Amino acid sequence: MLVDHTTGDDAGVFRLDARTALVQTVDFFTPVVDDPRAYGAIAAANALSDVYAMGGRPLTALAIAAFPERDFPVEWAAAIVRGGAEKLVEAGCALLGGHTVRDPEIKFGYAVTGLVDPDRILTNAGGREGQALVLTKPLGTGVVATALKAGQAPEEAVAAATRTMAELNRRASEAALAHGVTGATDITGFGFLGHAAAVARESRLALEIETGALPILPGALALAERFQAGGLKANRRAFEPRVEFRGTPGEALRALLYDPQTSGGLLLLVPADTVDALLADLPSARRVGQALPPGPKPLIVRA
Amino acid sequence: MLVDHTTGDDAGVFRLDARTALVQTVDFFTPVVDDPRAYGAIAAANALSDVYAMGGRPLTALAIAAFPERDFPVEWAAAIVRGGAEKLVEAGCALLGGHTVRDPEIKFGYAVTGLVDPDRILTNAGGREGQALVLTKPLGTGVVATALKAGQAPEEAVAAATRTMAELNRRASEAALAHGVTGATDITGFGFLGHAAAVARESRLALEIETGALPILPGALALAERFQAGGLKANRRAFEPRVEFRGTPGEALRALLYDPQTSGGLLLLVPADTVDALLADLPSARRVGQALPPGPKPLIVRA
Repeated sequence: MLVDHTTGDDAGVFRLDARTALVQTVDFFTPVVDDPRAYGAIAAANALSDVYAMGGRPLTALAIAAFPERDFPVEWAAAIVRGGAEKLVEAGCALLGGHTVRDPEIKFGYAVTGLVDPDRILTNAGGREGQALVLTKPLGTGVVATALKAGQAPEEAVAAATRTMAELNRRASEAALAHGVTGATDITGFGFLGHAAAVARESRLALEIETGALPILPGALALAERFQAGGLKANRRAFEPRVEFRGTPGEALRALLYDPQTSGGLLLLVPADTVDALLADLPSARRVGQALPPGPKPLIVRA
Repeated sequence: MLVDHTTGDDAGVFRLDARTALVQTVDFFTPVVDDPRAYGAIAAANALSDVYAMGGRPLTALAIAAFPERDFPVEWAAAIVRGGAEKLVEAGCALLGGHTVRDPEIKFGYAVTGLVDPDRILTNAGGREGQALVLTKPLGTGVVATALKAGQAPEEAVAAATRTMAELNRRASEAALAHGVTGATDITGFGFLGHAAAVARESRLALEIETGALPILPGALALAERFQAGGLKANRRAFEPRVEFRGTPGEALRALLYDPQTSGGLLLLVPADTVDALLADLPSARRVGQALPPGPKPLIVRA
């Protein structure tokens, strides 16, 4: 076993031989959007993301489904499964099977297995001083999903959040490997600062973040003060003590720093001499800060 | 992909190279016994069984847990997880991680990955005419679990069912490979005759079963008429039309033929010249019938 969950990494890694390791992960969750096919696609993109975050290539998937017995049209189940299967095809990942249980609360996701070169694994511990921080997807999916559940999310915000959540982190992962990245994570339930804190800890760095450079979903800033899920508040309680603020970000922006993401982007620590080439390969990625020597706090947030 | 779920096999198989294939499966379920540690062990033995049923060697596991937020002591969660982990250690299988969700209904299980030699996979389609049918664990776990939920199961019946459900199918799988078996399945949700029917169909055989030879859990026959879960009745509706009865088994024994098993035994199709050696290696296994050329019905049940 090369990596287990004690380092806060996104997936476990098991060495098969000198050149091949398995990278494995499991994730499933309740619907984050109303459209069943989009929900399936997001569940697949989210599960695959843990493999991409480690620099792996997805190989096989097993579906995990909990569907209600009553008031749940069979067409919805089919659409969820189809949305996920289409996303697996896009990722070149074979669906080997799955398990479905009856449950009053819908849940869907996958256990995913990928292959990774043991000498080229992206981990939380792989960051180095002087590297640039790059974030590959906009923040705010948790805030938009919470507003959607309350019936208060503008259509355009939902459409943009759905699009970003369904997007594979494949190109971001491939670009990271092509440009010499060794430190990376994906942004999921602990929010941007929670996952950044894990990288800072494991890489023994302080990460300095420019809030003005952070990519944010359209509409998310306007929703962020009113629609904070329990997870956002828990993340803020857990991680705000690890932050040194330089300047005072607005309350909405500050909340988004802790927003739990579904199928969020990769946070990459990119060597200074390759960051421009990487950004040219990933048009929607943004340079959001830099890696500094460790200091009194693991995170420095500039506003 | 060498095997997917269209053949009714227990797990999917994905070829890595000429000598190695991944065998993968996922299973999780609500508690079948009251003791949390035994429940965890049974969930692990059950998930691992799909790998053993294909002739594979378990390698890694990811835990899948749904635990209630209220009225669920943290010690129970710890005991479930520990019971599973102990069983994985017994199987030589590494726990790489997992995913837990909050859910009012407890569920627990694993996604398991194993390795298998692509030329020595045990499948539903691998049976041959003239082979002996061997069943490696007694029937009746569904009936006992249903009686337990109703508070009507004798202590000894529960203890025996718990012991058999927590037992790994590892030795049975190793003995099968050692004695030239190529056709096998494990007995789970579709019951003994449901899984036997899948083997008969895929191997193009008729399977003749001697009810008098079937191993049955202590106490299960006495409970079988009163404690039939919905799954037992559904299995009987689905599979009884495929059975030619020669003689009339008692109603209790007849019900057990369709009883959904949790972590059931392997049904092996064993060459006539090695069956005695295999039975000598597996003291609790029983010879329960034989494989005949296909006839009007895929299953013949003698009483």
